[in-house]
Amino acid sequence: MKKQLLFIIALLVMTNINSFAQQALWGAAPIISPEVKADHTVTFRIQAADADSVQITGDFLPTVKMKTQWGVMDVPGKANLTKDEKGLWTFTSQPLESDLYSYTIIVDGFKTTDPNNVYIIRDVASVFNVFIVGGGKADLYQVNKVPHGSVTRRWYDSPGNVMPRRVTIYTPAGYETSKEKYPVLYLLHGMGGDEEAWIALGRTSQILDNLIAQGKAKPMIVVMTNGNVAQEAAPGESSLGFTKPSMQMDHTMDGKFEETFPDVIKFVESNYRVKAEKSGRAIAGLSMGGYHSLHISRYYPNTFDYVGLFSAAIIPNENVTSKVYENIDQTLEAQMKNGYKLYWIGIGKTDFLYKNVEEYRAKLDKMGMKYTYVETEGGHTWTNWRVYLSQIAPLLFK
Amino acid sequence: MKKQLLFIIALLVMTNINSFAQQALWGAAPIISPEVKADHTVTFRIQAADADSVQITGDFLPTVKMKTQWGVMDVPGKANLTKDEKGLWTFTSQPLESDLYSYTIIVDGFKTTDPNNVYIIRDVASVFNVFIVGGGKADLYQVNKVPHGSVTRRWYDSPGNVMPRRVTIYTPAGYETSKEKYPVLYLLHGMGGDEEAWIALGRTSQILDNLIAQGKAKPMIVVMTNGNVAQEAAPGESSLGFTKPSMQMDHTMDGKFEETFPDVIKFVESNYRVKAEKSGRAIAGLSMGGYHSLHISRYYPNTFDYVGLFSAAIIPNENVTSKVYENIDQTLEAQMKNGYKLYWIGIGKTDFLYKNVEEYRAKLDKMGMKYTYVETEGGHTWTNWRVYLSQIAPLLFK
Repeated sequence: MKKQLLFIIALLVMTNINSFAQQALWGAAPIISPEVKADHTVTFRIQAADADSVQITGDFLPTVKMKTQWGVMDVPGKANLTKDEKGLWTFTSQPLESDLYSYTIIVDGFKTTDPNNVYIIRDVASVFNVFIVGGGKADLYQVNKVPHGSVTRRWYDSPGNVMPRRVTIYTPAGYETSKEKYPVLYLLHGMGGDEEAWIALGRTSQILDNLIAQGKAKPMIVVMTNGNVAQEAAPGESSLGFTKPSMQMDHTMDGKFEETFPDVIKFVESNYRVKAEKSGRAIAGLSMGGYHSLHISRYYPNTFDYVGLFSAAIIPNENVTSKVYENIDQTLEAQMKNGYKLYWIGIGKTDFLYKNVEEYRAKLDKMGMKYTYVETEGGHTWTNWRVYLSQIAPLLFK
Repeated sequence: MKKQLLFIIALLVMTNINSFAQQALWGAAPIISPEVKADHTVTFRIQAADADSVQITGDFLPTVKMKTQWGVMDVPGKANLTKDEKGLWTFTSQPLESDLYSYTIIVDGFKTTDPNNVYIIRDVASVFNVFIVGGGKADLYQVNKVPHGSVTRRWYDSPGNVMPRRVTIYTPAGYETSKEKYPVLYLLHGMGGDEEAWIALGRTSQILDNLIAQGKAKPMIVVMTNGNVAQEAAPGESSLGFTKPSMQMDHTMDGKFEETFPDVIKFVESNYRVKAEKSGRAIAGLSMGGYHSLHISRYYPNTFDYVGLFSAAIIPNENVTSKVYENIDQTLEAQMKNGYKLYWIGIGKTDFLYKNVEEYRAKLDKMGMKYTYVETEGGHTWTNWRVYLSQIAPLLFK
């Protein structure tokens, strides 16, 4: 064992610029942060002997009201960590509901990640640490000992779009060796997101693996597109290199994505063993992706039997001129007459889009267009979007 | 535009716990860090008004000697950032050679990531920010406007191994629609690594995309296994959940990986359109992965025409008893007699394994076993391993 230990030590010292490794090396116990306990409290630990203040902020803390020039808004709260004589700061949360949570820490006013937690997810232009509290709905978000699907990042040509586009595709366990044709869910991200959003924060592959293994969802392919048509791929994955991500991009809600959507359907249906028919197609999305799902499902008649609008934006900006947004009422009428199996709308009670969705539901009610409506607590959050995916997946392709 | 702007603002405030976004919101210029300049200097910027000291450490800085109980070792150096009147700390590097670099920052003794750089890679139990300086060898590490291969994370059964295993597979552009059979490179990680190591820090898909597009490498499939047979998958991707990664794992260099390697070959050759013959198989790896490549290529006779040992560990621990390590000299003799097209050895001059590799080369010389030898500056680093992959890929399957 001596030889292997020396090998490990040399590796640690020479290749690693890591405080954990060095602690292990010098014999101190490694810092575990976060530590999710059996009672669902979570303890965070930050070693920062020279700091005067360490705080934590994240979606596991109660929100607080913040006054802005656009009105009072809910923002994530903060909590103070407490320092011991060795410079180790700790904070233990209240017992938390089962979920995937994200957080960052603030050391003397400097906000960044917890260096003892290597699990970090990017959302738009931010990164934060994540952790999962199991024992409830988040058990679906964990990798469990069930058959696992494959996740592929692939590029396709989009002739309507002047640039190749990157897409993330989940194929369920058994797809590769089966002879069956599979149905397809097109799953669309929100503003500032990209083809990595649903697979990272959305936990799509875990949710689908688990629901399929439990017999609650049909095996299906999930196609996670990039809805920013001015962007080849997610930040860091395109020829732009490691540039700073931006929330605001050109051509995200002006009809260009909807206009070029047939390119991705054609790509999927000519490259995968799929049910290339209305009953084998679903489209759902969050926020801007809900907006895209609404307009795509109405604009291309008789294409989708299943539609999901998660915290959806609804109404086009008055300045956009795409033909996609002409005759909205007539195309909805046509969609209703053509028939569909599910038109699913979900939104949180405090979502800033609640009123828009309420108005849209009133319009559908007036038209007599049927839909399934789910109202949850909370707002415009991944907490809700993971729940909506977990709820809609079992309703598809039945 | 007003409606869309309000929509973005609401999204930023409600869903984002991000200083960049909030800066953008309140009108301040976003902080760009790192900024890679035309002269190849790089400026780092950290906003930390209340900090007394901000430092940076990373592999772009000259190494320094550190005295340890195991001798003097080279470790990454540190540099001090300078504070301005607004609490913005900056540091500008010397002009840097083209490469992918990694770094972390240290605020009042607290080491973590740069919050303005969303590009973060995990290596074993550490995370650090990365950036690329182009204009040289690292142009191969960038996503360029060339045809892109696909990257799939997939699970396979390993009957020799009692648990399913996750693998990362690169298929070159055009694979899916071609009728050709492709050669396969098995590319193995080092100790503490996993099936994510070569695709993340190794930049395998970018290097292969670029070399293939330039006509310098043959289109090939690259199979990046997980060499820790006691582990289903990379940290965070297995049923262990978001637990702390460990450098030291059971059964990493005791023959178990070599013993079960036929499982992955069988999986690949029955699931992909490949040249299932010696001339269509290569195996290469770094450090522990070089060790695995050495022993696998010798233990399974007539299986690989191409072998690559990158900064390889060589000699088994004296306590291991696997039959894989019996008759090393005789199996090397047999490998030599059976013939191969390339036996490639690369190592850095300051690598702590340099002497072991030197002894191994002396053994091969004595046997008359031919090999290609490349000696580079530097040590046991990803800088070297990316170079070795860039150098060996054009030599394969010719």
